[in-house]
Parts: sequence; structure tokens; C-alpha cells
Amino acid sequence: MMKLSVQFALLERKLEDLQSLITRELEKLDTARFREDIWKRKEGGGGRTRIIENGKTFEKGGVSTSVIYGKVTEALKDQLKTSAKEFAVCGLSLVIHPLSPKIPTIHMNIRYFEQDDNHSWFGGGIDLTPYYPHIEDFMHFHFMLKKTCNEVIADSYIKFKAWCDEYFFIKHRGEMRGIGGVFFDYLDGHDRKHFQLAEALGDSFLDIYLPIVKLRMDEEWNKEDKEFQLVRRGRYVEFNLIYDRGTIFGLKSDGRAESILMSLPPHASFLYDWKPAKNSPYEKMLKYYQPQEWVK
Amino acid sequence: MMKLSVQFALLERKLEDLQSLITRELEKLDTARFREDIWKRKEGGGGRTRIIENGKTFEKGGVSTSVIYGKVTEALKDQLKTSAKEFAVCGLSLVIHPLSPKIPTIHMNIRYFEQDDNHSWFGGGIDLTPYYPHIEDFMHFHFMLKKTCNEVIADSYIKFKAWCDEYFFIKHRGEMRGIGGVFFDYLDGHDRKHFQLAEALGDSFLDIYLPIVKLRMDEEWNKEDKEFQLVRRGRYVEFNLIYDRGTIFGLKSDGRAESILMSLPPHASFLYDWKPAKNSPYEKMLKYYQPQEWVK
Repeated sequence: MMKLSVQFALLERKLEDLQSLITRELEKLDTARFREDIWKRKEGGGGRTRIIENGKTFEKGGVSTSVIYGKVTEALKDQLKTSAKEFAVCGLSLVIHPLSPKIPTIHMNIRYFEQDDNHSWFGGGIDLTPYYPHIEDFMHFHFMLKKTCNEVIADSYIKFKAWCDEYFFIKHRGEMRGIGGVFFDYLDGHDRKHFQLAEALGDSFLDIYLPIVKLRMDEEWNKEDKEFQLVRRGRYVEFNLIYDRGTIFGLKSDGRAESILMSLPPHASFLYDWKPAKNSPYEKMLKYYQPQEWVK
Repeated sequence: MMKLSVQFALLERKLEDLQSLITRELEKLDTARFREDIWKRKEGGGGRTRIIENGKTFEKGGVSTSVIYGKVTEALKDQLKTSAKEFAVCGLSLVIHPLSPKIPTIHMNIRYFEQDDNHSWFGGGIDLTPYYPHIEDFMHFHFMLKKTCNEVIADSYIKFKAWCDEYFFIKHRGEMRGIGGVFFDYLDGHDRKHFQLAEALGDSFLDIYLPIVKLRMDEEWNKEDKEFQLVRRGRYVEFNLIYDRGTIFGLKSDGRAESILMSLPPHASFLYDWKPAKNSPYEKMLKYYQPQEWVK
């Protein structure tokens, strides 16, 4: 079996620490508790999925770490565009769907691949899917991401932000899933800065998201707010099942369906030709689902 | 531009008549009414989509006819596996999502392709997605399909039924979308029997579905029944967005997103690792989502 770098072990440890820290901090804002599913993968590796459901703050959330290793199968060969024979990957995936339409859905992923041909790379990102035009929240979100990325790699935010705008785009709708964030993939694992970027992104999560949750969790919402949230969650489902590479690849390569699909919202609506009322907050919100500059 | 056969014109007319008849008969079981969307396709052709929403019987339903023609683009070349330069297709698509979990969701599709290289073929089918183990309804459904198919082509039901079991299978779940029905594709358009099969299937729809709706529409249901329906509708979404060739192809080739996605249920749930209660009707229902013999 292939050997792994010390960096692999360090990141794996880091991601598990982050999982503990993040789930503990999120639980402080809810009466519901995360439950844990430990699972093995037949072909090698396994994971620890933590799920919170039906909370007063978080309607459904999943925070999952995994270490997967094994042979590069034919299907993987296509996906990874590689001639390597073995691979190992460790990762953290997180999706939080709050109950209140005033609190945005957030997604974070950090992953690190190593292959037996000495190639290694980092991928990851954080993106936000809000349902109400609290633009100060969106600005805080992008401001914090800019600070986090640029502190590690000068001027990197603008590149990762554009990558995110492009990736989380629902082509058949002509709009993004949310208001973007940062996204990167295939960043050379031998460049120390990329390891630091992955760590910094993970460390930034609570400082980015908790202030938004705390600010909005006691805000009232009505059934129109809820309907808009459910319609947008429908778009979230469309994106994840039609375009998200990780989801499609995971399902088609016999990954653990429950852990892959933990990203889907608990409830979603699909209404024919849905349009927001004129001059409603939702009509305003729609224009924020187009790529735009949030921080200069 | 390519010439079309008289058969094309006859089927087109037939499908439009069926659309009128079916929407009229469904309206008799509801207070809500179908509304109509007439749309054009930039590259050639257009359609007539009829939608019913928020009815007391039908929560969301779409019955759509279309005639599409144009050049065989690169994307189409892959899909149709053809070297033809022009194509035309007429079709009827129908998906009915009742409000009550006691009434099954039904889907029917009939389509006929012609190409300028003289190839032509029929595709189509009807399949049922029930949420409650009323097995007498499932037997009626399969009995009627067997009668319909075998009257036109001797012993054809068994083949089309197996094709349906295979097609509407959610691989990552190891289960079907519903209890199957019949499905066929690429049936030679020059064989008169195939035209008759398409017509017979369309004609059978009301005799197959209305008795089930009428029998179940006044039956009571509770919140457990609803939860199961919403979870299964989630699987319906998973199937349509991940595996259904028509949906994926339509969206990726810039089809009219609203008409393609009219098939999605109005509301759906995605709950982590959902399991039915022991000895509940839902646990019983799960085994019916595996391929099995319904009529001998």
C-alpha cells in the first residue's frame, strides 16, 4: 500500500478537531444535538458523519469527516485524470440548513488527495445560500473570506471568488445557488501555502458563520419568507443533483448515499414557473444570485 | 427542411386530443383548473404545457404536448447515436402528483421521432408511484397495462414491464422510484404495430388512473402518511435529476427548464437515513419498490 505524507496525517487530525469544535459550537445555539454515524467503506477507509435534525435553529445539518483510500478504478481514472494506481483522500464536508429563512444555509468542504505517483492536491471552499436580502450579512461573509484567503496567499480571494461564482452556477436557471464565496480545486499539495489555506479556511468557519446566525436567529419570519426559502432550497437540490461533481461522482461510484445526500435540505418545493411578488424582498434577493463584487 | 410522414401528423393530432381529454377529465375530480402556457423553442417548434396546482385532489400536475424540430446538434448526435442532420419529434408528457398520500403519483410519456435519414421510432411508457400499500390498486394498474400492450402486440407486456423495472431504478438506493409499469424506446417507426401501441397506451390512461383516484380520493390520511409521501417524493426528485435521460438531456441542451421540471413534486423531504417504523404500512410499502410479478 502507498505511503502517506506527514501533511496528510496533520490535515486529517486538523479536520477531525474542526469537526468537534464546529459541532460543539453549533449545539450551543440549539436544543437539538448532533448524533454520530461511524461508517466503513468496503474498498478502504470510512468516516464519521454527525447530523443534527429538527432543531429550533438548525432544521438539518451535517458535518462529516472521512478518510478514503484504495485503488484508482476506471471510474476514478476518468474523474481524477490520472495514471496513478492508488489514492488516499481526507476531507471535511459541512452543510447547515437553518429552520429560519432569515438565516442563510452554509456549505464548507476541505479535501486533500495524495496519489502513489507523488501528485497531491487540495480542494475546498465555503459558499453561502441566503434567502433574505440582508446584504450586510453577505458583505461580512465575503469580507471575512477575503481576509482569510489574502492573509495566506496575497490577492488569492479574487481568483477563488470567481471560481466559486462559476462552479455554483445553475446553468438551466441562469443563476447561482446562492451568493457564492470561495472555491478552489487541484491546488498543488507540495506548496506549503495551500496546506495553510486549507487550515485557515477551516479555522475561519465559526468566525464567519456564527455572527450571522446569532444576529438573525431571533428575527421573526412569516409564511412568504418560508415559501421563498423552500423554492430556493428546491434550486439547491437541482444544483446538487445535476451539477455538483462530488455528489454525482459519489453516487455513481457506489459511495455512501446517506452521507453524500446529507447536503440536501430537509424540505424543498418545486413550483411551476414560480415568480416573486413585485417589489418583494424575494424579487430583490434574486438579483443577488448573480455574480457581483461584494468587497473591493 | 425535412419532410414528415402522415403518421407524424396523425400522432401529433392524437396527442393533442389526448391532452384535452385528459385535462378535462382530471378537472372533474378537482375544484382547481389547469392553466395553459404556450411556448416556442428558438431552434424550432414549441409546446403547450398545462399545469394544475394546489387543487384539493391534485397538488401539482402537468400535461404537456410539444413538437420540436431542428438540426441534429453535436449534443443530440451523442444522445441519438445518429448521423442524421435533421430531426422532428412530437410528444406528450404527463405527471400527476395528488395531494393525498393515498392516491399514487402517475407518469406517462409518449414520443415519436423522425429523422431525415428515414429512421423513425417510438418511445414511451406509464409508471406508478404509490405511497400506501393498496396492492389491489397496483394489480389493477399492471393488469390494465398487460391488457393494453398484449392486445396490440402479443406477449409484449412482459418485455416492456421488465424494461420499466430497469429504467426507473434508483441505483444509489437499490430500489425503484415506484412500482413500475411499462417502458419502451427506439421501437421502429415503420412497424405499424408500434404506432398502434403508442395510441393504445394514450387511450388507456384514463381507464387505468381514474378508477384509482376515485377509489382513494375520499380516504382519510394522517401526518405519518404525509411524511412517507414527502420522503418518497424526495426519491422521485433524486431519480429525475440524477438518472432520467430526458430530464438531464433537456436541461443540458437548453430545453425549457420549467416544462422539463414540471415533473418534480411540489414539495419533497430529504431526511438523513430515514427508516419506516417497524410493522408500519410504509415498511410494507418498501418491499413493493423492488421489481416483482404483479399479474401472471
